[in-house]
Amino acid sequence: MGFKFSVLQTDNQTRARLGLLETTHGPVQTPVFMPVGTQATVKTMTPEEVRSVGGRLILSNTYHLYLRPGHELIRGAGGLHRFMGWDGPILTDSGGFQVFSLGPLRRVEEDGVRFRSHIDGSEHYFSPEKAVAVQEALGSDIAMAFDECAPYPCTYEQARAAVERTTRWAGRCLDAHRSPEQALFGIVQGGVHRDLREKSACELLELNFPGYGIGGLSVGEPKEMMYAVLDFTVPLLPVDKPRYLMGVGSPDCLLEGVARGVDMFDCVLPTRIARNGTVFTRRGKLVVRNAEYARDFRPLDGDCGCYTCRHFTRAYVRHLIKAGEILGIRLTTIHNLYFVLRLMENIRQAIREGNFEQFRKKFLAGWQA
Amino acid sequence: MGFKFSVLQTDNQTRARLGLLETTHGPVQTPVFMPVGTQATVKTMTPEEVRSVGGRLILSNTYHLYLRPGHELIRGAGGLHRFMGWDGPILTDSGGFQVFSLGPLRRVEEDGVRFRSHIDGSEHYFSPEKAVAVQEALGSDIAMAFDECAPYPCTYEQARAAVERTTRWAGRCLDAHRSPEQALFGIVQGGVHRDLREKSACELLELNFPGYGIGGLSVGEPKEMMYAVLDFTVPLLPVDKPRYLMGVGSPDCLLEGVARGVDMFDCVLPTRIARNGTVFTRRGKLVVRNAEYARDFRPLDGDCGCYTCRHFTRAYVRHLIKAGEILGIRLTTIHNLYFVLRLMENIRQAIREGNFEQFRKKFLAGWQA
Repeated sequence: MGFKFSVLQTDNQTRARLGLLETTHGPVQTPVFMPVGTQATVKTMTPEEVRSVGGRLILSNTYHLYLRPGHELIRGAGGLHRFMGWDGPILTDSGGFQVFSLGPLRRVEEDGVRFRSHIDGSEHYFSPEKAVAVQEALGSDIAMAFDECAPYPCTYEQARAAVERTTRWAGRCLDAHRSPEQALFGIVQGGVHRDLREKSACELLELNFPGYGIGGLSVGEPKEMMYAVLDFTVPLLPVDKPRYLMGVGSPDCLLEGVARGVDMFDCVLPTRIARNGTVFTRRGKLVVRNAEYARDFRPLDGDCGCYTCRHFTRAYVRHLIKAGEILGIRLTTIHNLYFVLRLMENIRQAIREGNFEQFRKKFLAGWQA
Repeated sequence: MGFKFSVLQTDNQTRARLGLLETTHGPVQTPVFMPVGTQATVKTMTPEEVRSVGGRLILSNTYHLYLRPGHELIRGAGGLHRFMGWDGPILTDSGGFQVFSLGPLRRVEEDGVRFRSHIDGSEHYFSPEKAVAVQEALGSDIAMAFDECAPYPCTYEQARAAVERTTRWAGRCLDAHRSPEQALFGIVQGGVHRDLREKSACELLELNFPGYGIGGLSVGEPKEMMYAVLDFTVPLLPVDKPRYLMGVGSPDCLLEGVARGVDMFDCVLPTRIARNGTVFTRRGKLVVRNAEYARDFRPLDGDCGCYTCRHFTRAYVRHLIKAGEILGIRLTTIHNLYFVLRLMENIRQAIREGNFEQFRKKFLAGWQA
């Protein structure tokens, strides 16, 4: 029960590290990628399938579950784990990112955010206290503080105001948080500005969260800029606490994030592009719905050991997707998640064996972004 | 290799019988229900899942596969079994039913049917010879003769003309058929008219098919009328050959069909209603997407041992379906197919144990159609 994080090993050439998250629903090795189960399901997959492709810790979205089916209903079902049949650990986001993404449908005040549901237009109100209460009802193992994520690009003043509000709201989240079985992480904001990242980290570290998200990245800025921000942000965070880079999931970014000391990642990318008929291969992305694969009787990726690649051909997967058959996007989803989760496993092994930097260079040399 | 059918046991009180179909891809106990895999996939399911819910012999649609991805592509993949990763037996229909259903998009001539694709409007031509050639390319274990299925209602003259053309086309199919590994079944037509069913059966029996479909039923006529037609049609067929009632799959009709001597069934009903959020229970259909199940934390059917009922609640399945999540219709599809295939298993056991009539009465007494 409860939450613990240990760094087991640190890389010599990079900031990469091997760690162990211990949660109410079991241990998780880091660096870890979290498949996203927005609406209490990793899209198209059963819990057994998520586990079989290597999923151990999943993310679910507070905003979506609050609106539908409602956090009180999920509490009544015995919590999110029981509701969705997933007995491993779950992290929930705070809903902040979704609420701020609503644009004209929301109004931000100091106390919280008034917004309209994207489903039926009904009016709702989220505050730091509410975001914590909803996540406690869901019963996730890791909850996130309700933050303000400034857009990219934005003015320095906007970024600074978001940092300050995020700090004030972080304190209110901590005050509201009750569950001893749930860890509450703070989120460092500050956009691409070094001094604002320093300010945000400094203020949040005083609150002594058990883990820290790095928010406000992967929101449209160039990858090189994200890497530069990580270069100066990660060293601001405590070495003995997990660092979670929010919204990142392309294979190259995972490697670069790990090299910069990130322990946790989540992203809809692998599952979203799968549903559009795009799959990862060792050489980069492949659009299997393209006509050139109509008679290609090879697996999606010749090096892959996933269920899809062991049983089916590009021609078959393409046929299913062109014909609108659900099995098609199930098979691409299985493949892409397996690919990313296997990559994380290989990353952990490389760190363990002291050759992470070599592994990173070799992978990126073969990867066409 | 090759095809064989044996009647193992005959019921004392009804025409029900227990049989064994032996096909190039293995044996199948009858009475059997065939899940439908229209486009080389039983909608939403992997081959392993089809097998795990009890599927042994599946049906696939010649018309659909001919149009997309094309039978030559499937031949190039090594046949339909390899293309879709199903190593059990497959029956293909002839495409006749689909082509005749196209209405204004098709023109029937003595030689065959000219039609336009429902996908892209392109022009195509199906004849008895073509239907056989396409099915041989697909490599199914059981192929069906290209027939004319008269609509319901229709005039006596229409029904008679369809019988006569079906006989002429049946002869052409036999002449064209080459594969020793594939059995070709004839299809008895004749609508609801006893003398036409007699005429059709008599003419087709002369051609000595290894099995017979009963076509032109379950096309809109009342159930009682279908049962009456079965009462006088089944006895016209050879006792030592399998009888396949095409397009029937509701639990009550399966029981009534078996009682009248039918050995094989297929229908999209269980999988189609699943995708609309309707599931079978021991007491009849249940529309799980209805609001009354929002907080119902019981399984879909308390008596069911399927994957869905062992792991998830009505509330969760309803949430998934309302939220448009694919896992929702996967779970209802698994449940409905398991329900129907388990019913067939129970039917076979009841025949084996000599209490089929008792089983049938008990089931129907509890079933709200």
